Amino acid sequence: MITVVKIGGNVIDNPEALKAFIADFAKMPGKKILVHGGGKEATRLSATLGIETKMIGGRRVTDRATLDVVTMVYAGLINKRIVALLQAEGCNAIGLSGADGNVIRATRRNPEPVDYGYVGDINDDGVNAAFIISLLDKGVTPVFSAINHDGNGELLNCNADSVASAVAVACSRLAPVSLTFCFEKSGVLTDVDDESTLISRIDLQSYRPLIESGAISGGMLPKIDNAFKAIQSGVEKVVIKSSARLLADHGTTITK
Amino acid sequence: MITVVKIGGNVIDNPEALKAFIADFAKMPGKKILVHGGGKEATRLSATLGIETKMIGGRRVTDRATLDVVTMVYAGLINKRIVALLQAEGCNAIGLSGADGNVIRATRRNPEPVDYGYVGDINDDGVNAAFIISLLDKGVTPVFSAINHDGNGELLNCNADSVASAVAVACSRLAPVSLTFCFEKSGVLTDVDDESTLISRIDLQSYRPLIESGAISGGMLPKIDNAFKAIQSGVEKVVIKSSARLLADHGTTITK
Repeated sequence: MITVVKIGGNVIDNPEALKAFIADFAKMPGKKILVHGGGKEATRLSATLGIETKMIGGRRVTDRATLDVVTMVYAGLINKRIVALLQAEGCNAIGLSGADGNVIRATRRNPEPVDYGYVGDINDDGVNAAFIISLLDKGVTPVFSAINHDGNGELLNCNADSVASAVAVACSRLAPVSLTFCFEKSGVLTDVDDESTLISRIDLQSYRPLIESGAISGGMLPKIDNAFKAIQSGVEKVVIKSSARLLADHGTTITK
Repeated sequence: MITVVKIGGNVIDNPEALKAFIADFAKMPGKKILVHGGGKEATRLSATLGIETKMIGGRRVTDRATLDVVTMVYAGLINKRIVALLQAEGCNAIGLSGADGNVIRATRRNPEPVDYGYVGDINDDGVNAAFIISLLDKGVTPVFSAINHDGNGELLNCNADSVASAVAVACSRLAPVSLTFCFEKSGVLTDVDDESTLISRIDLQSYRPLIESGAISGGMLPKIDNAFKAIQSGVEKVVIKSSARLLADHGTTITK
């Protein structure tokens, strides 16, 4: 089983949490892949550099200057920091943007009706799973930032959740894959302020009643929809759990 | 034959020159490796961020803030730009810091008598040539920045010429290697202002008279000393040539 783990800003922005997470990730048995998001460092650097942060409909516009910043911060600083820390824990990590080894190709999002700039969506056949698995077979652990390329020399800023899903789905054509989304909560909660309301298992049958009763709502809905999409595309299971409990058998498991 | 090519700031700082160089490098036949230096972008970014550039005896001191800047710019922006451009030219490049795949280990320079901060020297057995060659065997072209790691979680800023030499020497234990240093001149000139004074070939026998007569002097001496060191450590030949003439049989060839 290959495990794809995605972490976001809540881990990346907290050096203590990141160190603890990395020690856990290094201890995880079996073949594994890490995908990391951005965190606040890019926003801070943009602000310091006087680059205006433009949002359209709640989404960040990636102009040329912003693309340079996210390439520096995500594919450079954060990626190499994580790789160096993993190496120190005995995990032979390799940091990859999608351009490296042509491993993930994306296409710039149509500038009509809204131009988000250098934002990309991963191509349907855009993930080179054979290359990823050849690294895993050598005992090397890929660590992906969400910076990919279009094959024509342009880098593109992608969504890290989508990178994790796309990598998991592509690899699942060659080997069994599970996909873990780490975040600040213990998993899917029916009351977001009460960790005791964790739903430990969701399948297609139990999902609809949970939505209809309002037990699952808001920002969790697109996450679970994406989880089911990944499962229907070949991923064995999706786990949503706390980044602080990577090694514990705790969280929400989503299956067919 | 594996060819290791090193480029510096004169190419990296000039987008037109970089594009032309990359097209040439992509066309180069055989197995190849690119090592790139930094250029002025890191200095500019440091200045914009208000990070003081400290020099001791003509050498840059890499404090924590400067290490973050060079990691962002060298291992992030420049490295990924080059990789994306090479991919567009049909060259399957992979960008690597020394932490990636644990491919180059370095040791922080002794802070006594002068503390240069997070500056590293490559360990004697620090280059994982087997991993590099396994990539080359798959048709993948490694592209190294000069950011390496110490194995204990710390990134270190190294000299790009030294990275190129160390990679070439380590690979030469497994396969024949030639090493090319690209710079702004056509090669070793007896009169630096006159390109017609190019010395096309230097060997150990012809070297001493060239120094004694003063025909070779100044900044070129350490370059040639390093070239001989590489050759005596197993590299077949070292070529010093213009980055604008990568594919031409032109420049200074240094052999035993």
